[in-house]
Amino acid sequence: MIISMKLGATKEQIESVCKKIEDFGYRVHSIVGEERVVIAAVGKGDVTHCLESIGSHDCVESAVRISAPYKFVSRQYKPDRTQISVGKAVIGADEFVVMAGPCSVETEEQIMACAEAVAAAGGKILRGGAYKPRTSPYDFQGLEEEGLKLLRKAGDAYNLAVITEVMTVTNVNIVAEYSDMLQIGARNVQNFPLLKAVGRVDRPVMLKRGLCATIKELLLSAEYIVAHGNPNVVLCERGIRTFEGETRNVLDIQAVPVLNKMTHLPVILDPAHSSGKRDLIPQIARACVAIGADGMMVETHPNPESAWSDGPQSLTFAGFKKMMDDLKPYIDLWKASRQVPVGVRS
Amino acid sequence: MIISMKLGATKEQIESVCKKIEDFGYRVHSIVGEERVVIAAVGKGDVTHCLESIGSHDCVESAVRISAPYKFVSRQYKPDRTQISVGKAVIGADEFVVMAGPCSVETEEQIMACAEAVAAAGGKILRGGAYKPRTSPYDFQGLEEEGLKLLRKAGDAYNLAVITEVMTVTNVNIVAEYSDMLQIGARNVQNFPLLKAVGRVDRPVMLKRGLCATIKELLLSAEYIVAHGNPNVVLCERGIRTFEGETRNVLDIQAVPVLNKMTHLPVILDPAHSSGKRDLIPQIARACVAIGADGMMVETHPNPESAWSDGPQSLTFAGFKKMMDDLKPYIDLWKASRQVPVGVRS
Amino acid sequence: MIISMKLGATKEQIESVCKKIEDFGYRVHSIVGEERVVIAAVGKGDVTHCLESIGSHDCVESAVRISAPYKFVSRQYKPDRTQISVGKAVIGADEFVVMAGPCSVETEEQIMACAEAVAAAGGKILRGGAYKPRTSPYDFQGLEEEGLKLLRKAGDAYNLAVITEVMTVTNVNIVAEYSDMLQIGARNVQNFPLLKAVGRVDRPVMLKRGLCATIKELLLSAEYIVAHGNPNVVLCERGIRTFEGETRNVLDIQAVPVLNKMTHLPVILDPAHSSGKRDLIPQIARACVAIGADGMMVETHPNPESAWSDGPQSLTFAGFKKMMDDLKPYIDLWKASRQVPVGVRS
Amino acid sequence: MIISMKLGATKEQIESVCKKIEDFGYRVHSIVGEERVVIAAVGKGDVTHCLESIGSHDCVESAVRISAPYKFVSRQYKPDRTQISVGKAVIGADEFVVMAGPCSVETEEQIMACAEAVAAAGGKILRGGAYKPRTSPYDFQGLEEEGLKLLRKAGDAYNLAVITEVMTVTNVNIVAEYSDMLQIGARNVQNFPLLKAVGRVDRPVMLKRGLCATIKELLLSAEYIVAHGNPNVVLCERGIRTFEGETRNVLDIQAVPVLNKMTHLPVILDPAHSSGKRDLIPQIARACVAIGADGMMVETHPNPESAWSDGPQSLTFAGFKKMMDDLKPYIDLWKASRQVPVGVRS
Repeated sequence: MIISMKLGATKEQIESVCKKIEDFGYRVHSIVGEERVVIAAVGKGDVTHCLESIGSHDCVESAVRISAPYKFVSRQYKPDRTQISVGKAVIGADEFVVMAGPCSVETEEQIMACAEAVAAAGGKILRGGAYKPRTSPYDFQGLEEEGLKLLRKAGDAYNLAVITEVMTVTNVNIVAEYSDMLQIGARNVQNFPLLKAVGRVDRPVMLKRGLCATIKELLLSAEYIVAHGNPNVVLCERGIRTFEGETRNVLDIQAVPVLNKMTHLPVILDPAHSSGKRDLIPQIARACVAIGADGMMVETHPNPESAWSDGPQSLTFAGFKKMMDDLKPYIDLWKASRQVPVGVRS
Repeated sequence: MIISMKLGATKEQIESVCKKIEDFGYRVHSIVGEERVVIAAVGKGDVTHCLESIGSHDCVESAVRISAPYKFVSRQYKPDRTQISVGKAVIGADEFVVMAGPCSVETEEQIMACAEAVAAAGGKILRGGAYKPRTSPYDFQGLEEEGLKLLRKAGDAYNLAVITEVMTVTNVNIVAEYSDMLQIGARNVQNFPLLKAVGRVDRPVMLKRGLCATIKELLLSAEYIVAHGNPNVVLCERGIRTFEGETRNVLDIQAVPVLNKMTHLPVILDPAHSSGKRDLIPQIARACVAIGADGMMVETHPNPESAWSDGPQSLTFAGFKKMMDDLKPYIDLWKASRQVPVGVRS
Repeated sequence: MIISMKLGATKEQIESVCKKIEDFGYRVHSIVGEERVVIAAVGKGDVTHCLESIGSHDCVESAVRISAPYKFVSRQYKPDRTQISVGKAVIGADEFVVMAGPCSVETEEQIMACAEAVAAAGGKILRGGAYKPRTSPYDFQGLEEEGLKLLRKAGDAYNLAVITEVMTVTNVNIVAEYSDMLQIGARNVQNFPLLKAVGRVDRPVMLKRGLCATIKELLLSAEYIVAHGNPNVVLCERGIRTFEGETRNVLDIQAVPVLNKMTHLPVILDPAHSSGKRDLIPQIARACVAIGADGMMVETHPNPESAWSDGPQSLTFAGFKKMMDDLKPYIDLWKASRQVPVGVRS
Repeated sequence: MIISMKLGATKEQIESVCKKIEDFGYRVHSIVGEERVVIAAVGKGDVTHCLESIGSHDCVESAVRISAPYKFVSRQYKPDRTQISVGKAVIGADEFVVMAGPCSVETEEQIMACAEAVAAAGGKILRGGAYKPRTSPYDFQGLEEEGLKLLRKAGDAYNLAVITEVMTVTNVNIVAEYSDMLQIGARNVQNFPLLKAVGRVDRPVMLKRGLCATIKELLLSAEYIVAHGNPNVVLCERGIRTFEGETRNVLDIQAVPVLNKMTHLPVILDPAHSSGKRDLIPQIARACVAIGADGMMVETHPNPESAWSDGPQSLTFAGFKKMMDDLKPYIDLWKASRQVPVGVRS
């Protein structure tokens, strides 16, 4: 920790703060600058509590931690990238994993058609919402258990793993029963009871970054899941909220190399939710591959104009196929870059 | 709805879109502009679904709703301001209601001391967290049921109503058992299962705006609660996330008059979470009263430097008392402005 | 400066960084933590250059300055609040100074009417744009010198000081010739040649915070003006850009107490530009007074519906008069709080 | 224009608004909805003025324009992509143009070394600042004319075109004398007198998006330049300001396909300023090529640790060479995708 004393802090105040820091089990180094005194605290202890306590002193300007606030998810803790198996796909290894499917499971016919189209074009994981988080209480809220069953059936029929969102602790078990991977949506990125609950389940988790979650907060939310017992977490950047209105959100694509440095967990991107516009997705998808994400999630629907949700950002089956074909040479380059030994790679 | 067709949309495309809108039960008015065709849709129907469907057509530039997406919380639906009783306090009426207490309930001695200080200075509702949402899994997570009991005991001892946060559907009943008012925290503003659950409970709810929730989203989240049966919702602006780092968040104080126009629900402010700094709070509190909020929530602790959470933004008892005394003439002006009949007032 | 070395930095790298810092004239304190080494640098030197140089080393995680990057505008440099005379008004002293007038000077009749209304209601400074920054090249760009003359004439006729915006270095002299105070608009907050130019002029300057300028950047821009010779700078918070769309911008009202701690310069607020909506302004204005700003700028127009710019946020003369009357008791409280000696005040 | 009347607007108010719109030369269509009346205005006229006038009526909820506020820069006005020659490079055609060089021109030796390295690795345009916009008045402000001369000399020696920033109207001529392309920096994106001045010069302009400029505002700023006579404008996305602090800014990479739809002007990216971190740039650069930008600007310096500005984001010569080599297969794919006829391409 680095503690900056206020200008004009007295000798007594400085000593009192040092004493307090030592009581938390740290060694202190007091440095007298031209303007002010700065105290460095070294050692192991209850960092957050110490920071807040010291920061509460009126004579303290700021108290800042130096060490990372997370542990298990950090690349220092585990230098090798984590690989996560979902069905026959392995995320974080040598394939660019595409997850696709409708926003919501609507009917058996619809989800079956999606599964067929996804499998045919080279997707590996079928997505489809059964419990839907909707901004308005008057919007379609999902088929619930019936949707889970249909999704499972479609995945099995076309040899695809399936992923679906879980929104509340009371549904974790039933979603885990039907689904190969659990999705935590952007709005639940700091729903801590839910993070703890999926931490206790034997299913990989895809954790979406919140609309205004910092990268550090995303990692701390992943740490919740891992610390509660589940090491299989895939991070997903899906657009953050800014002042720009031409797209639904702004895709923070730089988060991929940033996260690759900070964590060993796989990172995927979701250009459908970030752009919100079908016709932009194929161009963005190329960048998603090129920057070295571990995979991508998109939406596809037999008839987007009739979709019960997210139609404007859903690809048609033909559009999805075209995009997947178009991505092939980029994925070849992606694979080549994965051959470089990790230590050298970044 | 107003639908803007893309430039160069053909007659067939326009007719097809009009037909589709009519199938949703709306009447259409097609307006041929210099540049493009705009279609106005009038009537009653499933707006969201229609908007998404129409917006999914490649020939459509944008599809925008005109009517408000919420109903029960709107001031059109209920022009008179809602008044909500919590213990002996009435929020939204002729008193400026101050809620205060520690961030977390820590010990019986601590919460008792807080209750005494809050009551003595003129606070009406005692706050104190028993279940704490913490960014890091390694931070103190609250005393849980033991905390609820201590809070209840302290409130009863000093004749204060109590409010505390509920973080998950499985805890709604127990929190409602001990607490006079349920708090939904900023991170749960779009935790829809939780909103539905508190909508089914016979306890007023204070709903905090999320860090990046728009005012419209806040109202839609309130609509979830009201639509599920609970009309007693107080909205709380507590700072939004921006690029500015001198304060923890930016207090969107303009949200008060904006919300007063849009909704009949009471609105309070939380200058402790917005600023994150104890010494700024008294000055901000004056503005909270002057702008006409229905109340305010702040934090106070017997010894902020030893607080288990949020010490830097907690007022000492002396500081809380001084602020409350300082606010008196502002509250007198506030009361005078409330005498103006509502119709004339804004 | 505090320099955090990367995890795993070698002894040689640490020594090399220390050597480099010493070459810049600083003393170094190297602190070996559990995870990493942190280096504190103490002394006087070319901070920015040293920070960038050290931060450029691949073995360095971050390099952060502790001391404030500005000098003359800081409250350490000059603890007493600065008072700035503009005509007969004194900003930063014992009056709450209201600047008002139309967005643009349009005609002699219009600006004369405005001046009369502003003076009658108690405003002290007449505003009116002669050179207008407009987002679109096709919008009205101002009457230029003719506008300056009319503004001056109107101010003189009603005994008001006048303020108007200067947009480019080539106009500084002419604007200074006609105007008592120069306004630097939000879009020019980092137009450094312009800041230098107004720094060389004998006229007080009102510097508006940019839409996404941090408080620190605002102070650095003020430092440009002061460092080039002009100590009379008034800061103006006028709303920042966020994701929220119900108002034109979000008024960062907390910036007032924050700035009062950081700088001795006066601070005013502009609720017209922050809200963009006439009917919200009176309620917000109360908060502007209560939080202790040194003044306020608003827009008023004889007929907002015919204004050549900013009509929706312009008050009618009647509306302006009503607001000023309504503010009187708040201004009385404001004056009382100014009687408290500065040392005790904040 | 679409005008939404407030709920409860009277027949007289609606008629009066319609009359006013007609006075501006538009035809009106009044549509009576379930909740409110909406008025569509069709025709040609002074849109901004009309919008502001109508929006100023208290009975009007909102007044929104449908047509684009810019003309010359729109893709409707000119469907074919604009190609801009700078020296021997052509931006917007069939080469991915890389601009590179130091943040600031420091010495003849330094800029000569940079030019050699840039040319050797395949860069086409040499960048280097002679007038530097610096947040602090105490930071290095550039070599000014001496810097321009050195930059020109280095460009000529290695057969590179040169680009440098112009910060104020009084320097436009001298910068145009030495430089092949003028750069307008992010902080000047709405410096309208400067935009007009470069609009009158016979040199292509690279216009950087401001830190919080919307895409629409960027296009309007480009429209200023084009409307004043200079059709050769290249747009540059260089990161926008958000709440995220791990990188200097967030690269809004989606702006590339969005701009490609809205405008015929070329679009380049600047991953150095968006990330602020040297080690992230090569990975981001791949995405810049893959998404189909027309080029890229980066910084390179013989010894970043001794750079007078922006060292942390400057590539070493070896790093720049390695990145350029690494990009080759991506650029091959880029070229292949450019062979697709424009009409089909997007």
